[in-house]
Amino acid sequence: MTKQIDFWFDFASTYSYLSAMRIEPLAAARGVTVNWRPFLLGPVFTAMGWNDSPFNIYPSKGRYMWRDMERLCKQYGLPLRRPSKFPRNGLRPARVICAHHDAAWVPDFARAVFSAGFAADQDIGEREVVAGLLRSLGLDAEALIAAGESPEGKDLLRRQTDEAFNLDIFGAPTFMAGTEMFWGNDRLEQALAWAEGMPAKGSE
Amino acid sequence: MTKQIDFWFDFASTYSYLSAMRIEPLAAARGVTVNWRPFLLGPVFTAMGWNDSPFNIYPSKGRYMWRDMERLCKQYGLPLRRPSKFPRNGLRPARVICAHHDAAWVPDFARAVFSAGFAADQDIGEREVVAGLLRSLGLDAEALIAAGESPEGKDLLRRQTDEAFNLDIFGAPTFMAGTEMFWGNDRLEQALAWAEGMPAKGSE
Repeated sequence: MTKQIDFWFDFASTYSYLSAMRIEPLAAARGVTVNWRPFLLGPVFTAMGWNDSPFNIYPSKGRYMWRDMERLCKQYGLPLRRPSKFPRNGLRPARVICAHHDAAWVPDFARAVFSAGFAADQDIGEREVVAGLLRSLGLDAEALIAAGESPEGKDLLRRQTDEAFNLDIFGAPTFMAGTEMFWGNDRLEQALAWAEGMPAKGSE
Repeated sequence: MTKQIDFWFDFASTYSYLSAMRIEPLAAARGVTVNWRPFLLGPVFTAMGWNDSPFNIYPSKGRYMWRDMERLCKQYGLPLRRPSKFPRNGLRPARVICAHHDAAWVPDFARAVFSAGFAADQDIGEREVVAGLLRSLGLDAEALIAAGESPEGKDLLRRQTDEAFNLDIFGAPTFMAGTEMFWGNDRLEQALAWAEGMPAKGSE
């Protein structure tokens, strides 16, 4: 059994973008596999009394976040184009992944969605945008989207969001190495080191 | 003129403790001097609609923060004893520093206050605790506390907190390298690198 980390993210989350683009090579270098787990921050924020992103509710935090993102993207060599609308609605691509979470194309698709949202300022909530991203990966966009929007696909995302809530997750990205929680792109390296060092799963 | 960084902190702030204990040698290694600037998060949080620490208002964030602090303190080799009351009231030691902000003992006193609060679970709002810390540094505790509690000392802290607010500061610790803001202990190294690289102040 390989070592594993759960990567909980929302497609609308700025700092999730940074981790999504960085996690796979960093995890591979430690012999850790990544379980990509999209969820919706909306219900989590609602439970905290927020009806919008905290970066909108608290303007000083929002101004800082965008400047911080600029600096970090420059440091990581990642493109950044501030979305003309924030936050976007990550519901549709999240459902596609939930309905196919074991598929080998999930990481590529997730990165394509994040790039569309944060490097190309596309509306990732739009069906045609999601379909275009799937097609450019050579996938059957119509079938995959339809599965995501089936009652079962919708229910899978709902259950995944409930699970995040039950895990005490309050933001994104969040990394779970077993029961150990790490919040934020700033903790990605620490989370992977923890996952690598976990005794129970150790085959390396 | 030496390169300089403004270190904005609140004595009640957990992550400020981490930065306070770490900043001087890291800054010295880059030829950067540290301007210790206590302020009160209370009025800043009030303006954001919070009547308590967000770590108390949002229990999931609070639970995570204490676990994160445990891990980070272990990593940094810093003692941590969770305060029996959180947050403490950092008003009194902050006033002492504001009334003597150029004094050479400020960093030692600030670290002593943070250690009292987060390693020894002392009530840093208590006059006798603050006096004891000053005395153990060989200082005239009564005179220094009296200066802090004079109308001028009170006004200096009030003005410093207003200045933090006007700088768009929304949390602590915050590092200002010129006009460039860095928030959180996680950004200490990046902030110091920025301060070191600033052209305008460069004598090195």
